[in-house]
Amino acid sequence: MRVMILGGDGYLGWPTAMHFSARGDDVYVVDNFAKRQWEMESGIEPLLPIPPLHRRVRAWKEVTGKDIRIEVGDLCNHRFVYMLIERYRPETIIHYGEQPSAPYSMQSRTTAVYSQVNNVVGNLNVLFAMKRFAPEAHLVKLGTMGEYGTPNIDIEEGWIEIEHNGRKDRMLYPKKPGSFYHLSKVHDSANVEFACRIWGFRATDLNQGVVYGIDTDQTVQGPDLRTSFHYDDVFGTVLNRFLVQAAVGEKLTVYGKGGQTRGFLNIRDTIACVALAADNPAKAGEFRVFNQFTEQFSVRELADKVAAAGRRAGLDTQITSLPNPRVEMEEHYYNAKHTALLDLGLKPHLLTDEALDKMLAVVRANCGHVEKSSFIPRIRWDAAKK
Amino acid sequence: MRVMILGGDGYLGWPTAMHFSARGDDVYVVDNFAKRQWEMESGIEPLLPIPPLHRRVRAWKEVTGKDIRIEVGDLCNHRFVYMLIERYRPETIIHYGEQPSAPYSMQSRTTAVYSQVNNVVGNLNVLFAMKRFAPEAHLVKLGTMGEYGTPNIDIEEGWIEIEHNGRKDRMLYPKKPGSFYHLSKVHDSANVEFACRIWGFRATDLNQGVVYGIDTDQTVQGPDLRTSFHYDDVFGTVLNRFLVQAAVGEKLTVYGKGGQTRGFLNIRDTIACVALAADNPAKAGEFRVFNQFTEQFSVRELADKVAAAGRRAGLDTQITSLPNPRVEMEEHYYNAKHTALLDLGLKPHLLTDEALDKMLAVVRANCGHVEKSSFIPRIRWDAAKK
Repeated sequence: MRVMILGGDGYLGWPTAMHFSARGDDVYVVDNFAKRQWEMESGIEPLLPIPPLHRRVRAWKEVTGKDIRIEVGDLCNHRFVYMLIERYRPETIIHYGEQPSAPYSMQSRTTAVYSQVNNVVGNLNVLFAMKRFAPEAHLVKLGTMGEYGTPNIDIEEGWIEIEHNGRKDRMLYPKKPGSFYHLSKVHDSANVEFACRIWGFRATDLNQGVVYGIDTDQTVQGPDLRTSFHYDDVFGTVLNRFLVQAAVGEKLTVYGKGGQTRGFLNIRDTIACVALAADNPAKAGEFRVFNQFTEQFSVRELADKVAAAGRRAGLDTQITSLPNPRVEMEEHYYNAKHTALLDLGLKPHLLTDEALDKMLAVVRANCGHVEKSSFIPRIRWDAAKK
Repeated sequence: MRVMILGGDGYLGWPTAMHFSARGDDVYVVDNFAKRQWEMESGIEPLLPIPPLHRRVRAWKEVTGKDIRIEVGDLCNHRFVYMLIERYRPETIIHYGEQPSAPYSMQSRTTAVYSQVNNVVGNLNVLFAMKRFAPEAHLVKLGTMGEYGTPNIDIEEGWIEIEHNGRKDRMLYPKKPGSFYHLSKVHDSANVEFACRIWGFRATDLNQGVVYGIDTDQTVQGPDLRTSFHYDDVFGTVLNRFLVQAAVGEKLTVYGKGGQTRGFLNIRDTIACVALAADNPAKAGEFRVFNQFTEQFSVRELADKVAAAGRRAGLDTQITSLPNPRVEMEEHYYNAKHTALLDLGLKPHLLTDEALDKMLAVVRANCGHVEKSSFIPRIRWDAAKK
């Protein structure tokens, strides 16, 4: 299969590229390294330095003998995107290539507008390029569970059957996203659904939970194959931050009451889910939505689990509460469906004590320079600047 | 009341400005005349030439003695928007200032991306400027009934109570917009709802039906006070086009079966609805949605009404069907609620035979150069270029 991975330099894009390459697919990775620029803007670094993508691709070739092709460019440049799709005619396009951070988008007007324009225009360019050169391709678009917010009813997978005044329809699930970044993903989803409806496109929207973990079957095959791992307040996800905090003897920082419940998944399951979606494409005209996570936890529960793992490792891991920088409910109903990917055969890597202990050990063994100041949230939802 | 009207040079913006000025409010109109540029791009003109906004404002002063202040600039320039809100501290911001045409947005990648960026960024700039300088102001944002599409259940006013698996929530009404333009309005609505939720803004989203009509109480007070009236395939609304087709002896062009049912309203009621919203502002933190139309018709019903009006005027008005350039259902359920504005006191101007006869007479008396080629749709939904 010809697989194009947009955002192939990222935390998830790079391991995805190696996964498809390892199993024999033709893999093209596309990136403009914008994320590395955003890291510089915020003054943050991943836990360990990440080699340039070109070096990683050479290392992959050395280890496996397989080629991954790199194309460097910006999805907001439509001529670049048209060239990509015309030249490579991908059968599957996996689209991770967007600004992925809620706090980044909430810093200021500049970053809010940038996040929405960058993500929406890049995605529109992909749709129009597909229209012209690959209308049969399957678009696997990464979204987020954060598009749904925290409704008081069960969260379905993208669509919901509504009975109202004695009539019925299958409707798009109503969304209440939690940041300008999350809104950009909602806008994308609406644009992609429209393209499926009027142009007969096939698309799978993967509303992903919060990803944790550092290793996949491929990243461990060499030091130059590892993926980026962030623990900071801008790009770090909560469990990854807790692991680093525990590893360096800092308190785990829970925002507010910590009752915020979310869906979580191991990075290995991200890769597995994306592969399952690619191998079982949506039908022509189908806008298919999967909720991509394996377990629900509250933030407080996660902190307790990491603190216990810390104690098992002989660390004195404590938990503290910080004022919540976000505007969100800290106690709420949360029950999100996630059976579609299980039905396709997903075998989840659950957050067992053993899995946590292993991740904590890997993080402890790989702690380079840890910048403790970046544990503390600097961006407040109610005080976006200029 | 200090009222700022964004898009004050437009079909609806200009009559709105005169209405508020007539009743004694302080009115500031903002425009960058982009619509006049889009007209040139498409090679179209309104039925009668429209003087520059500055001349219209001088004419208004001569007729009424009242001042309307003009500010010229682009809402996508945030420094301009910040200056506006800081200098004038409007109590009500009426936001018509967006690219308003579905066909325009469906021409090409360029116009699709332009429509979404122009509308979304302009609206985000307004939100951030309010955050900084006028967080208590009431934003009256023009949306469209086309955001909802044609669901098989009743369309509520923005929100719907959903009971699902034994639990309930009040959710945003799920939307299925019909063009990249309509999608831009959906994106705007989502961004505005978020601003209400996290910043406590007060906003009214007016999901407006298809507007028809040429005169308001103010436009008739002088030839330089008239508003633009489009009958073309890009900016013309369907009833206005039918009136011009009847006036010049052309067949009324129905797309496909003409079973497409939509909500309609007289331009006089647009002005009345906007004034009712402004006079009864949303509460702090409230994202309020009104469906702004007075009657539902199918396109075929409208054509029949205009043909009958033509016959009453001694014209031999015929109806013809054209292949539908849009991707939309031509037979469908449609029942949209629109009681909120009636509850606030709206007295609708319905599409009676008398009203139709009068509009047809005005159009016949005001036919300047009618470009018959622009009756024919040139833009197809399934064939967007590059």
